[in-house]
Amino acid sequence: MNIDDVKSKGINRRTFLKAAGGAIGATSLGLGTSNGADAAVAPTELPTVPFWGEHQGGIITPSQKHTYFASFDLTTTDRRDVIYLLKYWTDAAARLTAGQTAEPLSVDTSKPAADSAEAYGLSPARLTITFGFGPGLFISDGVDRYGLAAHRPAALVDLPTFNGDQLLEAHTGGDLSIQACADDPQVAFHAVRQLARLAYGTANIRWAQTGFLPDTPAGETPRNLMGFKDGTQNLQTKSEAELKSYVWAGNEGPKWMSGGSYLVVRRIRIALEHWDRMTVAFQEQTFGRHKYSGAPIGGKNEFEPLNLDAVDSDGNPIIAQNAHARLAAAASNDGAQILRRPYSYNDGLAFTAERWPPWRQGMEYDAGLLFFAYQKDPRTGFIKIFELMSQIDMLNQFATHVGSGLFAIPPGAKRGEYIGQQLFELA
Amino acid sequence: MNIDDVKSKGINRRTFLKAAGGAIGATSLGLGTSNGADAAVAPTELPTVPFWGEHQGGIITPSQKHTYFASFDLTTTDRRDVIYLLKYWTDAAARLTAGQTAEPLSVDTSKPAADSAEAYGLSPARLTITFGFGPGLFISDGVDRYGLAAHRPAALVDLPTFNGDQLLEAHTGGDLSIQACADDPQVAFHAVRQLARLAYGTANIRWAQTGFLPDTPAGETPRNLMGFKDGTQNLQTKSEAELKSYVWAGNEGPKWMSGGSYLVVRRIRIALEHWDRMTVAFQEQTFGRHKYSGAPIGGKNEFEPLNLDAVDSDGNPIIAQNAHARLAAAASNDGAQILRRPYSYNDGLAFTAERWPPWRQGMEYDAGLLFFAYQKDPRTGFIKIFELMSQIDMLNQFATHVGSGLFAIPPGAKRGEYIGQQLFELA
Repeated sequence: MNIDDVKSKGINRRTFLKAAGGAIGATSLGLGTSNGADAAVAPTELPTVPFWGEHQGGIITPSQKHTYFASFDLTTTDRRDVIYLLKYWTDAAARLTAGQTAEPLSVDTSKPAADSAEAYGLSPARLTITFGFGPGLFISDGVDRYGLAAHRPAALVDLPTFNGDQLLEAHTGGDLSIQACADDPQVAFHAVRQLARLAYGTANIRWAQTGFLPDTPAGETPRNLMGFKDGTQNLQTKSEAELKSYVWAGNEGPKWMSGGSYLVVRRIRIALEHWDRMTVAFQEQTFGRHKYSGAPIGGKNEFEPLNLDAVDSDGNPIIAQNAHARLAAAASNDGAQILRRPYSYNDGLAFTAERWPPWRQGMEYDAGLLFFAYQKDPRTGFIKIFELMSQIDMLNQFATHVGSGLFAIPPGAKRGEYIGQQLFELA
Repeated sequence: MNIDDVKSKGINRRTFLKAAGGAIGATSLGLGTSNGADAAVAPTELPTVPFWGEHQGGIITPSQKHTYFASFDLTTTDRRDVIYLLKYWTDAAARLTAGQTAEPLSVDTSKPAADSAEAYGLSPARLTITFGFGPGLFISDGVDRYGLAAHRPAALVDLPTFNGDQLLEAHTGGDLSIQACADDPQVAFHAVRQLARLAYGTANIRWAQTGFLPDTPAGETPRNLMGFKDGTQNLQTKSEAELKSYVWAGNEGPKWMSGGSYLVVRRIRIALEHWDRMTVAFQEQTFGRHKYSGAPIGGKNEFEPLNLDAVDSDGNPIIAQNAHARLAAAASNDGAQILRRPYSYNDGLAFTAERWPPWRQGMEYDAGLLFFAYQKDPRTGFIKIFELMSQIDMLNQFATHVGSGLFAIPPGAKRGEYIGQQLFELA
């Protein structure tokens, strides 16, 4: 085996898939499942989340401990390549979420493997894979590459520039998105890596970002890196009515999106060193909540309703006008709500120049919040809520949005379909 | 509360510690333990690793799932500041590893909190905190800042430049190191963050890096991101004789290091996209092992001894002369062995220019191996083993060392002592 032979063959997705496909029958070593389980073990005995269904997984799924998010730039001009890719991705995602390899492994070692194997032998770890379509799938630099422009949902707007945005190209945008979530970081990474490989020649990874959650005791609200409970006011995913009102796209938009949703991603760097220098009282004013209990300012219990009308003896609001919890509350946003599914991120250190006194510069934590929110319509969801928040939220002096994306999340696929099929059958 | 007041006070470590210290008695809310456990719960009922002892934790401790490594530059010229820092760090590390806050929390909210609280309510998650001393503690740019130069161990060499090194300043060196390991990534991050804060005014974080391991079933060897089992030949930490021979410093060096060890850290970026294009046979030749079983080439079982003398019918070695497993084996290195404690890392994407045909350039995975190795003496450990390996290992065309550090790991402290105390009492 000469390494240069492999290189000179210029292995591409199609020959690669063909090679792998040809090996489907050759799984006598039991290599078809990455968990190494006997085929007789029913998938339901493994910690799996169903892939096929009305909605994609990973939206109302109880949050797994780790996420790996990636967005992709399409490099092809051939609509058929995009359809092939979505078919390959759908098949592979169904296998991966069931704890299998991306494609059946071959016993023939003279070819590149159909799966990179770092998840071989691991639990599926409740893996979900959630696919999204960015604006660039429909129109890119004014060009309708795939004949889909007429079917772009009105809700899939170009996100406006918000006050304070410092978006970096390297963490923003993309034609397609994949969010993998799992209780094992290696399982999430593995999933994205296999899908990225299936995209060779059709799409390149544009940006990618890991996130994590703490092992919070069951029933408790996780704390973010600012040390506050994060999610107390979040939508209840067990309420079908709330989901229908705020999360799932319905008949108000194109039919191909019915049962889908819209994902807003924001990579929010937090000035943790700056934050740590603040008094607890100031931090609590900033959030509008007490730090340890999570209760609204002046309250005792985390789940007490926010009393936005309460005033102190001087007539000043107990929960400040620019407190984060007030600005995020449905009552402050004409009832608007989104399903937040946040993670923290920690990418070590990076240079920063703070936007506030004393304008410190230097190497500081490149860590913070990897914000994911699913919603029926971003115009009445994230954009509505964040417009005022981006201007006056006290949190803003500690939080800088450095990455961003908006993706239409098509509905789930039935077995035998592929993700987004209804869109491609329209045009 | 005026935010500018806090800033203008220029809160530093000492006033901060004083404020926190003054609140030790004020823990009536039970805020002293971050796990929220009643003080009556014995620490042994929590998943903790003892902090005090002959050796520091985190060396022979069975690997936790997550690590957060940080190195620090000392900015003070006052030896007493370094001693204070090590005392604060020791006290805080003892508390943190027991599942407590870094310092007791106060009910007084008019001060910055003594702990940033993102681990409040979490399990200690087997947290270990392992401190190290870099060459710069002893001599920095030719200056003996702290009167310690005469006590620098001969084993704490300046690491040589190895073939292929592409070290980045931002991931290399440091006067002090902290490796936090825990089964919860937020617990590991929290620990380093508290210690970094205690260092304000004395030392700044220089670089920091997260790492993770998969949830491998008990008793199995974890796979790295190349899809191979990693650690089959590693030292057995249950063998006191092996540990004494290869891991713990003894009487051969300065007395203050007896019971300590030496840590080599390498941030090794792996060209995963390139690797994924190789045939399985070539990957196996590269490692000298079969991919799925982990057995030596030609063997059946992972733990079969490597037969380095076996040849094929043409007289060529079955395990190639430049195979990784051969080069790493004790038998190839005059018996040299190190205790590897590796993690994988995944920092998304970064620009790369490959060093081999077809010289691809662009955004690729910034992911790979976060290599940690503990040893009695790096001259007869990592340096000995890596010298030839860095020149001829087939793996090198996929692996680029982009970060590096060597640290003397002092022995553990007894209750009431501080880490490194024997060194500072000498001079």
